[in-house]
Amino acid sequence: MTVRLGLLGAGRIGKVHARAISGNGGAKLVAVADAFADAAAAISRDYGAEIRGIDEIEASSDIDAVVICAPTDTHADLIERFAKAGKAIFCEKPIDLDIARVRACLGIVEEAGAVLMVGFNRRFDPHFSAVRAAIDEGRIGNVEMVQITSRDPGPPPASYIKSSGGILRDMTIHDFDMARFLLGEEPNMVFATASVLVDPGIGGLGDHDSVSVVLTTPSGRHCSISNSRRATYGYDQRVEVHGSKGMVAAENQRPVSIEMATAEGYTRPPLHDFFMTRYIEAYAAEMAAFVAAVSSRSAAMPSGRDGLAALALADAAYRSIAEGRAVAVERD
Amino acid sequence: MTVRLGLLGAGRIGKVHARAISGNGGAKLVAVADAFADAAAAISRDYGAEIRGIDEIEASSDIDAVVICAPTDTHADLIERFAKAGKAIFCEKPIDLDIARVRACLGIVEEAGAVLMVGFNRRFDPHFSAVRAAIDEGRIGNVEMVQITSRDPGPPPASYIKSSGGILRDMTIHDFDMARFLLGEEPNMVFATASVLVDPGIGGLGDHDSVSVVLTTPSGRHCSISNSRRATYGYDQRVEVHGSKGMVAAENQRPVSIEMATAEGYTRPPLHDFFMTRYIEAYAAEMAAFVAAVSSRSAAMPSGRDGLAALALADAAYRSIAEGRAVAVERD
Amino acid sequence: MTVRLGLLGAGRIGKVHARAISGNGGAKLVAVADAFADAAAAISRDYGAEIRGIDEIEASSDIDAVVICAPTDTHADLIERFAKAGKAIFCEKPIDLDIARVRACLGIVEEAGAVLMVGFNRRFDPHFSAVRAAIDEGRIGNVEMVQITSRDPGPPPASYIKSSGGILRDMTIHDFDMARFLLGEEPNMVFATASVLVDPGIGGLGDHDSVSVVLTTPSGRHCSISNSRRATYGYDQRVEVHGSKGMVAAENQRPVSIEMATAEGYTRPPLHDFFMTRYIEAYAAEMAAFVAAVSSRSAAMPSGRDGLAALALADAAYRSIAEGRAVAVERD
Amino acid sequence: MTVRLGLLGAGRIGKVHARAISGNGGAKLVAVADAFADAAAAISRDYGAEIRGIDEIEASSDIDAVVICAPTDTHADLIERFAKAGKAIFCEKPIDLDIARVRACLGIVEEAGAVLMVGFNRRFDPHFSAVRAAIDEGRIGNVEMVQITSRDPGPPPASYIKSSGGILRDMTIHDFDMARFLLGEEPNMVFATASVLVDPGIGGLGDHDSVSVVLTTPSGRHCSISNSRRATYGYDQRVEVHGSKGMVAAENQRPVSIEMATAEGYTRPPLHDFFMTRYIEAYAAEMAAFVAAVSSRSAAMPSGRDGLAALALADAAYRSIAEGRAVAVERD
Repeated sequence: MTVRLGLLGAGRIGKVHARAISGNGGAKLVAVADAFADAAAAISRDYGAEIRGIDEIEASSDIDAVVICAPTDTHADLIERFAKAGKAIFCEKPIDLDIARVRACLGIVEEAGAVLMVGFNRRFDPHFSAVRAAIDEGRIGNVEMVQITSRDPGPPPASYIKSSGGILRDMTIHDFDMARFLLGEEPNMVFATASVLVDPGIGGLGDHDSVSVVLTTPSGRHCSISNSRRATYGYDQRVEVHGSKGMVAAENQRPVSIEMATAEGYTRPPLHDFFMTRYIEAYAAEMAAFVAAVSSRSAAMPSGRDGLAALALADAAYRSIAEGRAVAVERD
Repeated sequence: MTVRLGLLGAGRIGKVHARAISGNGGAKLVAVADAFADAAAAISRDYGAEIRGIDEIEASSDIDAVVICAPTDTHADLIERFAKAGKAIFCEKPIDLDIARVRACLGIVEEAGAVLMVGFNRRFDPHFSAVRAAIDEGRIGNVEMVQITSRDPGPPPASYIKSSGGILRDMTIHDFDMARFLLGEEPNMVFATASVLVDPGIGGLGDHDSVSVVLTTPSGRHCSISNSRRATYGYDQRVEVHGSKGMVAAENQRPVSIEMATAEGYTRPPLHDFFMTRYIEAYAAEMAAFVAAVSSRSAAMPSGRDGLAALALADAAYRSIAEGRAVAVERD
Repeated sequence: MTVRLGLLGAGRIGKVHARAISGNGGAKLVAVADAFADAAAAISRDYGAEIRGIDEIEASSDIDAVVICAPTDTHADLIERFAKAGKAIFCEKPIDLDIARVRACLGIVEEAGAVLMVGFNRRFDPHFSAVRAAIDEGRIGNVEMVQITSRDPGPPPASYIKSSGGILRDMTIHDFDMARFLLGEEPNMVFATASVLVDPGIGGLGDHDSVSVVLTTPSGRHCSISNSRRATYGYDQRVEVHGSKGMVAAENQRPVSIEMATAEGYTRPPLHDFFMTRYIEAYAAEMAAFVAAVSSRSAAMPSGRDGLAALALADAAYRSIAEGRAVAVERD
Repeated sequence: MTVRLGLLGAGRIGKVHARAISGNGGAKLVAVADAFADAAAAISRDYGAEIRGIDEIEASSDIDAVVICAPTDTHADLIERFAKAGKAIFCEKPIDLDIARVRACLGIVEEAGAVLMVGFNRRFDPHFSAVRAAIDEGRIGNVEMVQITSRDPGPPPASYIKSSGGILRDMTIHDFDMARFLLGEEPNMVFATASVLVDPGIGGLGDHDSVSVVLTTPSGRHCSISNSRRATYGYDQRVEVHGSKGMVAAENQRPVSIEMATAEGYTRPPLHDFFMTRYIEAYAAEMAAFVAAVSSRSAAMPSGRDGLAALALADAAYRSIAEGRAVAVERD
């Protein structure tokens, strides 16, 4: 069975998913919707999808599932609408920046029995998923301490910062999901500290650009997260997991791996400078997982509940910053 | 202008090129020909190409260029035929195993003024081409000594060995081309030694599985090549270039780059185990270069003359083995 | 001028310093004192030092300086006594486990105008000191975030744990000093969390074996510390410093650096398994720095105040653990 | 039993051995001889050895063994003399530059039943010896192909070149010994090519600065050697051994192993820039092996016959260069 897809939102990340769909033998991009006619037309031209309106896609019997890449503030509404319409749903993170809204949305999704997958692409990166596989195979024994480093090449524009929900809900949220993916136990306490070291403009918007987080679990496992909105040497994305028998870590990735040696020393080129080239394989594998879930009518992972759990960690982290102490994560 | 292509041969490497063409915005795979109907049908289905006979493609006015992936013993004939028909030609290496036949073929190509590119894919690998770029930018000064390591994960089947022309014409030929690509001066003397260490069956067919070569140039530059038909740890493909100011090297590639540390030490996974996954980016860049050459009606590189030069080095290497001495390369 | 030294304590670390002194062209080990006659005799035999009592060394006019390697609970008394006697003093960390006692001791040292250096050997490791040099040269711009990893190969015996002052005063204290060495600004807030993951026996003694710490400075710099009493793969000692222009990190060290590649992947041997082999160069450089300070009558670094500052961080960390919040460091 | 040693020659390498002896608990440097009084006095002062003449050392009943670090052209005479005097002998390579002289000398040594060890220090480097241990443990199966890289930071002065015997007898000879150490089978054919790429002055003295060698064994194993008198990035010393089950390689060594990452990429410092710092551990282990051999009255390795065999390879390599072909190694 070929999974027939509708793409809602034809911007930057929409294109990434359109390409992933076109390279997936089990999926077909049937339709695309976007308020910007040019963006929709580009997807239509490059991938052969029809341009339809959102209402039309909702009513289309030739569409099994939608991929939501529209602005964040439309996510929850769209999820609810397409869940009720009986479509499977892939939604870019976050479902919403407000956790109460997320909970309400998930209630409707679950009532409708809809398949919902949230776009935490890093779980599908071959290197990070190999780390998880090594843990699952028992290669490092019981997980004890996790170290996550995530540094962007440079800060996003002010316009992006303004609607991002803050660095913890925008950037660290990927690391919260990664922590849950690797810790093997739900973190229940969060300590966070954040400052403005990179760009005073970010501080002027009430946001931070440098973050350190410590998560702990009931049994005493730790996870440290280190974030910055700047890394001159490229997109720094590492995890390191320590267990009772050893350690497993994912290395950074560079587009060109040569080494030069001169009187100044040994030099290798910078890392990837953009998340789309760094995670190109992850996006393909993520879409493949969604298509497989839809095709087999099985639960999709990471689920809406995974999206909720990561957001709960971000919210707790903001409370920790405000109160200067470790706070308990609020679960529902 | 979109370059319209016909694919001659729908086997393993034919599929690689069909995929590369489909991912190239400036090219379109119009037709495919193969004596095996199933193979042609698979390409037709996956990439939307029409199935045509070779005669038909030769006569097709909607085809600008052909990609020859048919058996080696048909290459020279096909090149001549399509050169005369006014098509641009990409041909998998080698043009022919017999150097006289190659010379004759190139005479006809040049008479016809046809564009001919030979498939030395490694020149287009991003890591090897970055090594060349570093040399061209003068980062290591004058090139002095080149070290090329090329080890296959395992030996090919006997049927392949029989029609391969011997390891020097089949496997080392890529390294001969790489040597020419990196040395910056044409090698004029060749010493080679070869033995059977991996598989006595290969020796039984009169071939070798382990090769060491030293090339030298008129000004005294050296290139060492080390080949084996076996590398338990994956597809070992390295170059290292020493110059008056320093060294530049391309590192090996692995599909998953994690590191595990236990009481036994630090372990990283094996390398790629197949040339198609190792060189997937190289094949795409190679086809892009061919398409660009056809589109701009400029000379394609590596050319037929490059194919001839590599074969001349292989022939000289066989004479060196037979005579136990360094021999001069025969140029035309 | 040759600096004439007396060694107080001929145990494990005493031997390390005796060897460092014997390899130092500007120093001479004149005398050794130890309650265990055999231990003193071994040092005497191997390095030609006379065996003297502590009183005798205090009164010796042929001794310029002492190296205190006696049990921790004697450190402060010995420092005060030899400071008053006009000797320069090198003392293994800590001065005392009780910060009030340390303050009182430093008062006497300062009153006496004595040279006092505290044994934070890691500052003298060539790799860590090169990290600091890179920072001082402005190679990474302004320091922003520091990451310190320190994992022991295995937990010490219960007897050691009992008198250690707890992991934060025994093990993390080195990392607190390293944080101060690298941050370029005094940390003023500390968050710490600790658990027992490695050995329940350690928990039974009221101590921890796994620690995560976050330090922050007034301007918003962060330092994360990750500690464990177990690392199956050897003595894991890393620092990573992020600044406005880039990053500098010290790599782990292994006694043998070969690489093996087989069908299972690429393997390198474990790290050093003992702090004495890992830091052998650091101990030599540390003693050289002390000898140079004594010889030139200049201040020794790290000073008694550095010892105090690290202990203040450890004390703050214990308060943080008790209170579950970030606490201010108490300075004098 | 403490082995009592006399040092013949107090120059640069003599000092290295004096230090190694002083750090060896089982050995004592009793006497030193050198025509230059200052050099002998320095050793005497630093290591407590008496200054004696060569005749005196020969007659000394308190000396068990000598370490010959005198000029090359005195080696064979000194070996013969001290062999007849019943002393064990450690001699820096080479025994002599003339192979007939070496053979004669070894005849006398063997007649006298003297212990003779030749200074191929690299066998004792912990990394290279770990490579050999991995082979001996069967970790890579049967050895098939060996790759040896040896590049000096810069060319020696003309005065050194003149009396060196040529690069193959001076520099490559270490690699010939390493090849024998690792191949597990005696090479019987040699091909070599050499040129002047680094320094025309070296060519003016009739020597070369860039060498490529291929050795083969009767069963078809290969060893490639690549040498240069210049490596801007430091002292480049690598071996790589391929076997039927895998590969083992020794990595290069640097005095400081930090990594810096900036917009220009990732940089590590250059390698050691001097053979004495690079091989400091090797010299200590070499002396320990000699002392152990003398102490236990067992055969020392590498022996005089190992010195002869390496020289025979160098001689064959020169014939290969002269004749442009692979030549057979002349054994006695």
